[in-house]
Amino acid sequence: MYATVLHGPGDIRYEQVEDPKIRAPTDAIIQLSATCICGSDLWPYRGIQASEQPMHMGHEYCGVVIEVGSEVRTIKPGQFVVGSFCLSDNTCPHCEFGFQSSCMQREFMSGAQAPYARVALADGTLVATQEMPDADMVQHMLAVSDVLGTGWYGAVAAGVREGGTVVVVGDGAVGLMGVLAASQMGAGRIIAMSRHPSRQALAREFGATEIVEERGEEGIARVMELTNGIGVESVVEAVGMEQSMSQAMGICRPGGSIGYVGVPHGVSFDGQQLFFRQQRMMGGPAPVRRFLPDLMQRVLDGKIQPGKVFDLVLPIDQVAEGYKAMDDRRAIKTMLTL
Amino acid sequence: MYATVLHGPGDIRYEQVEDPKIRAPTDAIIQLSATCICGSDLWPYRGIQASEQPMHMGHEYCGVVIEVGSEVRTIKPGQFVVGSFCLSDNTCPHCEFGFQSSCMQREFMSGAQAPYARVALADGTLVATQEMPDADMVQHMLAVSDVLGTGWYGAVAAGVREGGTVVVVGDGAVGLMGVLAASQMGAGRIIAMSRHPSRQALAREFGATEIVEERGEEGIARVMELTNGIGVESVVEAVGMEQSMSQAMGICRPGGSIGYVGVPHGVSFDGQQLFFRQQRMMGGPAPVRRFLPDLMQRVLDGKIQPGKVFDLVLPIDQVAEGYKAMDDRRAIKTMLTL
Repeated sequence: MYATVLHGPGDIRYEQVEDPKIRAPTDAIIQLSATCICGSDLWPYRGIQASEQPMHMGHEYCGVVIEVGSEVRTIKPGQFVVGSFCLSDNTCPHCEFGFQSSCMQREFMSGAQAPYARVALADGTLVATQEMPDADMVQHMLAVSDVLGTGWYGAVAAGVREGGTVVVVGDGAVGLMGVLAASQMGAGRIIAMSRHPSRQALAREFGATEIVEERGEEGIARVMELTNGIGVESVVEAVGMEQSMSQAMGICRPGGSIGYVGVPHGVSFDGQQLFFRQQRMMGGPAPVRRFLPDLMQRVLDGKIQPGKVFDLVLPIDQVAEGYKAMDDRRAIKTMLTL
Repeated sequence: MYATVLHGPGDIRYEQVEDPKIRAPTDAIIQLSATCICGSDLWPYRGIQASEQPMHMGHEYCGVVIEVGSEVRTIKPGQFVVGSFCLSDNTCPHCEFGFQSSCMQREFMSGAQAPYARVALADGTLVATQEMPDADMVQHMLAVSDVLGTGWYGAVAAGVREGGTVVVVGDGAVGLMGVLAASQMGAGRIIAMSRHPSRQALAREFGATEIVEERGEEGIARVMELTNGIGVESVVEAVGMEQSMSQAMGICRPGGSIGYVGVPHGVSFDGQQLFFRQQRMMGGPAPVRRFLPDLMQRVLDGKIQPGKVFDLVLPIDQVAEGYKAMDDRRAIKTMLTL
């Protein structure tokens, strides 16, 4: 088959590779219904994150099971499934504690920007629907796999509660999903920090009640002004850069919580500063598997339409253009059709 | 009056100073029933923390109100009171949120290693008993003011729950109070990390169910062994050094919580490492005021005897020896009688 392979910074190719095969008896092979490009794919694409190349790209997926290994018990060929970017057995103590992204057998998904993919630990990782969803559900189901699950976890980690006030730092796809999550959780005030009109509009559609365009110290001052100098109890940090983290810390009230879901790059914390800020910090790769059944049901019930975050849809053989559009910030998130 | 003054590293003197006076109409003057030396007093004593000198020492106190300013409404002369080391109005939004240690009017108590002391924001800071407690209650009431309140906050920040597993890193006074707090909160397993037989004994008396003597990597390995390789859900870090923090992070399970209440000295965190560890971090100066009424009642009801943490009692004119004994680790915590 053809698949998406990164050969070096900026060098994405859709090229012939070997077909995925069952390697362990707990594997499944799925035929993807659609796939997409993640903000985190841009780190190796930009050469900022060291990675072995050529690298098979893609970790967001949904599709139909076409083959399972001999030890797969609950997942069956013909089922429509969604899985997380973290492959997990869903039975180890960390999984049972709700942190499947730290599963004792954890692997990270790869190679999903392709028509077919191997999913390890299939029984633990994949969640099947009862029926084949309509085609117009695919984009929303695909979004659940990582970007919505990650935004959702950010909101959970930020302690979002009904009636509470939330700031989302970062208007990328994860940040926008953080807005949607906070809205679903019943937050009373959702302040999205965004300078881009199209992203602001989407943030409002997902439930943002206020937009702050300023950044850095000015952004902090603006949020403090909006909250009578108090700051907010919940901050979702969805970028992972030093400036965005400083912003998150600058607007979080003492005793508030920062859920940080952008993988930190070049971020460090001074212990004493963190101590006196007295903010609850919780981050990490999202345990999307914990949320999958609930989020898939919300999609199927028509309560949420997270797939609206895809503002560029390309056939997969134009995947290189999809990366470029995201790298140039012309697109929030690119869906790839098959 | 005479009071405790630090003139330079290791140079503690009990010397004549001016009597404390009402300076703001919200002040009170108390006659201390007893006072004590805090582990954090050792930072400036050791010259590790820069501070203006001469410095009036002491921030833990209980005693009898002898005078109040014209705007003090609820606190009255003759009352026995306990206050926190953080002075707070108890009415601002941060106080109402339970984080009085970040009160918008916050001041830090000083000058309490003396027979009399001025307490600012008296109505917000002080909690009075209904009756004058018996003399044998004084040591326990004194412990509530900071060391128990801080250990208690550490356990709250570490998410200690009934039946849960807790590790307390640090066998100083705060760590021992963390053990007591975890025990009161109903933790099922309380592992105290301690190498000192006398501190181990006190930890057991306060509720520790297991002792780990090893430190550093060996200590981490031992706790992991005791928890089947899983780690624990709640860690109270009560030291504030790099080694103790690494230990805390090494034994906390993904999704677990670290309550860190030792003021960090020379501790920094790498953002990406913190992210992938996926541990909830919550620290800061303890909002003792939040816990005061409850903790004072537990003392008066005879449920807890936190004053047992004082293993050296000296008349206040021997305060210099009290510092020395704690600096040499001959004493866990020194109470000073008046």
